[in-house]
Amino acid sequence: MERHFHHQLEDLKKALLQMAALVEVQIAQAVKALEERNTALCEEVIQNDKPVNDLEMEIDHQCIQLLATQQPIARDLRFIAAAMKINADVERMGDIAVNIARRTRRLIILPLLKPLIDIPRMALLAQSMVKRSLDAFVRGDEHLAREVCQQDDQIDHIQDQIFRELLTYMMEQPRSVPQALQLIFISRHIERIADHATNIAESVVYFLEGKSIKHRADDAVDAGENMPS
Amino acid sequence: MERHFHHQLEDLKKALLQMAALVEVQIAQAVKALEERNTALCEEVIQNDKPVNDLEMEIDHQCIQLLATQQPIARDLRFIAAAMKINADVERMGDIAVNIARRTRRLIILPLLKPLIDIPRMALLAQSMVKRSLDAFVRGDEHLAREVCQQDDQIDHIQDQIFRELLTYMMEQPRSVPQALQLIFISRHIERIADHATNIAESVVYFLEGKSIKHRADDAVDAGENMPS
Repeated sequence: MERHFHHQLEDLKKALLQMAALVEVQIAQAVKALEERNTALCEEVIQNDKPVNDLEMEIDHQCIQLLATQQPIARDLRFIAAAMKINADVERMGDIAVNIARRTRRLIILPLLKPLIDIPRMALLAQSMVKRSLDAFVRGDEHLAREVCQQDDQIDHIQDQIFRELLTYMMEQPRSVPQALQLIFISRHIERIADHATNIAESVVYFLEGKSIKHRADDAVDAGENMPS
Repeated sequence: MERHFHHQLEDLKKALLQMAALVEVQIAQAVKALEERNTALCEEVIQNDKPVNDLEMEIDHQCIQLLATQQPIARDLRFIAAAMKINADVERMGDIAVNIARRTRRLIILPLLKPLIDIPRMALLAQSMVKRSLDAFVRGDEHLAREVCQQDDQIDHIQDQIFRELLTYMMEQPRSVPQALQLIFISRHIERIADHATNIAESVVYFLEGKSIKHRADDAVDAGENMPS
């Protein structure tokens, strides 16, 4: 019975990682579609939302079943609680990749505003946070998880730069407003992917250490909030 | 023992509703601060984030404790699973109220762009969705919960109107870009409050009926995505 239960927990972990792998591809493809102005790739990202959503519901169901039938305690219980939270975060990242693809699809029919120097850099950083937060989960590495939480500041810094630059564009060249706005929204989507990676890292720390490290950074500034006026 | 457990479930419900009441005030005050250009009220909303965060962590802890010690099944288990999700949604709505207050604080030091006709209307609708989703939870009313899910379309419609109007402002009067951007972000924050109300309503249906109604509306358009170009 005990052995059976631990197999089930391994299955749950595998399902989560399978879903996370899909979402990592979704994010990478959405960013690539933006860089390459590739409509077909946007469509692919949008289509691939469904398998992620199906997996999310299946994993949620698995968690509830495990809670009901195995009545886990201590570390096993925390693992399942963390899995439920990570599941929700991964699914939301998939939704955000779809939103990036949808905005990209609209953006690339407009004239090119400027090379996208900072947005791909921000996206790379966010993708690395996602990867590291999931690695921390797989390896049970709370040190790595805490590192991910700290990377969020760098994201906010790049986001602020992007915002200021695009604001200047909009004020100097009113015709650039539609493109600049889509880029601002895309950069905010990427910022939210990084937020979800941070949430995942927090769930990993909770699972491993049994304590919450949430709400330490609640005084962080909402990006673009302090824009020049 | 059984009786004791049901008392604990009642306590959990009370704690959730207490937190939700705080967040409803947060949202109402943030919107009022925007309408009245009231900096002091913005500060109050920002300060009041902490009690909400504390309650969220306490409620999460209560849920995990109940799972560990009572090993609930069926409807009781679904109630606790739903409470964990609702807890996360309510806390996020509190964060969003804080973001609205922060943006409002920056907005009101700039010259007034125009009367805020549509944003307060959108906020009223979002607030009513929050209230109704929580009423559905209190009363165990799946019919009301399903109604809330349907209101989301109205929000998207108003959001789209607001966006188009502000886009025109920005393109015609470049000096209005900073104010218009803050208003666009605020309207997106309100839209996300409505999204969380919808999530709560979905959790209520899950708790009552044991089935998920998520991902029915995933083809909904990201607001502002279809802006005129």
